[in-house]
Amino acid sequence: MSPTPNNIQAAVIQHKGLPDQASSLNQTETLIRQAASGGSKLILLQELHASLYFCQTQTYDNFALAEALEGPTKTRLSALAKELECVIVGSIFEKRMAGVYHNTAIVLDTDGSLAGIYRKMHIPDDPGFNEKFYFSPGEHDQIQQIGFTPINTSIGKLGVLVCWDQWYPEAARLMALAGAEILLYPTAIGWDAEDTKEEQQRQLDAWTLIQRSHSVANHLPTLVANRVGHEPDPSSNTQGITFWGNSFISGPQGEILAEGSNTETQILSATLDLSRTEQLRQIWPYFRDRRIDAYSALSQRSIKSQ
Amino acid sequence: MSPTPNNIQAAVIQHKGLPDQASSLNQTETLIRQAASGGSKLILLQELHASLYFCQTQTYDNFALAEALEGPTKTRLSALAKELECVIVGSIFEKRMAGVYHNTAIVLDTDGSLAGIYRKMHIPDDPGFNEKFYFSPGEHDQIQQIGFTPINTSIGKLGVLVCWDQWYPEAARLMALAGAEILLYPTAIGWDAEDTKEEQQRQLDAWTLIQRSHSVANHLPTLVANRVGHEPDPSSNTQGITFWGNSFISGPQGEILAEGSNTETQILSATLDLSRTEQLRQIWPYFRDRRIDAYSALSQRSIKSQ
Repeated sequence: MSPTPNNIQAAVIQHKGLPDQASSLNQTETLIRQAASGGSKLILLQELHASLYFCQTQTYDNFALAEALEGPTKTRLSALAKELECVIVGSIFEKRMAGVYHNTAIVLDTDGSLAGIYRKMHIPDDPGFNEKFYFSPGEHDQIQQIGFTPINTSIGKLGVLVCWDQWYPEAARLMALAGAEILLYPTAIGWDAEDTKEEQQRQLDAWTLIQRSHSVANHLPTLVANRVGHEPDPSSNTQGITFWGNSFISGPQGEILAEGSNTETQILSATLDLSRTEQLRQIWPYFRDRRIDAYSALSQRSIKSQ
Repeated sequence: MSPTPNNIQAAVIQHKGLPDQASSLNQTETLIRQAASGGSKLILLQELHASLYFCQTQTYDNFALAEALEGPTKTRLSALAKELECVIVGSIFEKRMAGVYHNTAIVLDTDGSLAGIYRKMHIPDDPGFNEKFYFSPGEHDQIQQIGFTPINTSIGKLGVLVCWDQWYPEAARLMALAGAEILLYPTAIGWDAEDTKEEQQRQLDAWTLIQRSHSVANHLPTLVANRVGHEPDPSSNTQGITFWGNSFISGPQGEILAEGSNTETQILSATLDLSRTEQLRQIWPYFRDRRIDAYSALSQRSIKSQ
């Protein structure tokens, strides 16, 4: 099967976290160059790839890790995108203004320009994942094209979401309705050593499954880049997090095209045939039959009976 | 683990279709008795179990198969539910009035009463599945408690949906928001012999996956009863449908608790621990973080950019 304009080779990079930004970006650059030399034109990085996952604790000093949109990460990725002529999806701890910080995905186009950004909409907050302490939730505005809005790039419209968003079918659907051609999830998720092996396996399976289901429901390929490796809890209150890797690429029927291990730094790649989406939507016309007259209660927190 | 009020043994019955209602209901009764004698207190039947899957063709004579809510199927299942003290979820071709027919799930409580009904909301229409010809879509009305509204029974609130609904995360979510404790899908889906084996496998995998994902997204157990066996196309225009069975029960993390074959009449059963839902929702608080301020476009058919 020879490549056509509808075929895009995509790569997902999962790696172990490094404590400082310079070494992190060096590592990332090496991996991006490797992915690009393998032919990939779209490269997805993991969540907050330029640091350790600092949200394990609530520590004021960590705000010093935040950078402006036009900061060192964007500068570095932008130069690489231009040089290697590929689209790179990175993830930064964004300082928007003093007191307003976001968990933001940035998309660099093949000419090095910032094609768009996505500020994480659903923010988790659990032991070990103190994200509500660090990040304001992103805003959604259809007119201003922020929030659940795909980012236009030279290789297609990217439905970029971040980590916790992956559990919400609503987010993937909104991206699909707005024309996304690929779903992408930079992620940082792992195991708590206090859970049993069986529970850990159920969590990993559920995580893979829910994201593959966004492919199925929307007939879109999905790219997921997750951290890998153990990061200790700086407070020593817990046993830290073992990020479970298992990054993957699924096709528009949820079929696995590439899948990472749960321990190693890896580059996964697969060729996406974007023309499959429309074929599948004609054969399985879910979008034709959505009951839009009956969905308004999706905007409720809970539906009271009577 | 001894049963507690939160544990419910549930069964799913998949069987080959029979052409006439009397033999179909006899077969169903035998299978229900078997499931109940095995200890199941909740029994799910497949879609339109009292006939062959007549929607393969558009045939006016088939409207003669429709029955009133208070028809022979309800009468038979009601008597069985009362005698066996279990909740039975059946499926009928409902004649609501001359010219208005529905694909309706009926829920019989342990006292034989009709606990509620669900009229299929999403209606498919594809070669071999001419459902828009036969069925009006169900209405949704939160106040009147019809549509995406769980049905109260003596063993819990049942989020009953039907077949094509299974592809819509919106439907499962609305049921969960309204308090459903279990999701149930009577189904009739199968393979077209013209598809390759690989494509058939992708379809089956996608179907299992999307329904398990409703368990994951909502932390609810899911029961799916699908037809099994080949039913010829009465018009001989196609090779008919090979219903793929593979009925299953998943737990509230999407884990498979029981799974049927793709060829045999079978009863599957599993014990559901309904207390797991709240535990999981505290550990993985998706419902806490839904961005209800940003979901209104889910009620649009398509979201125009700019």
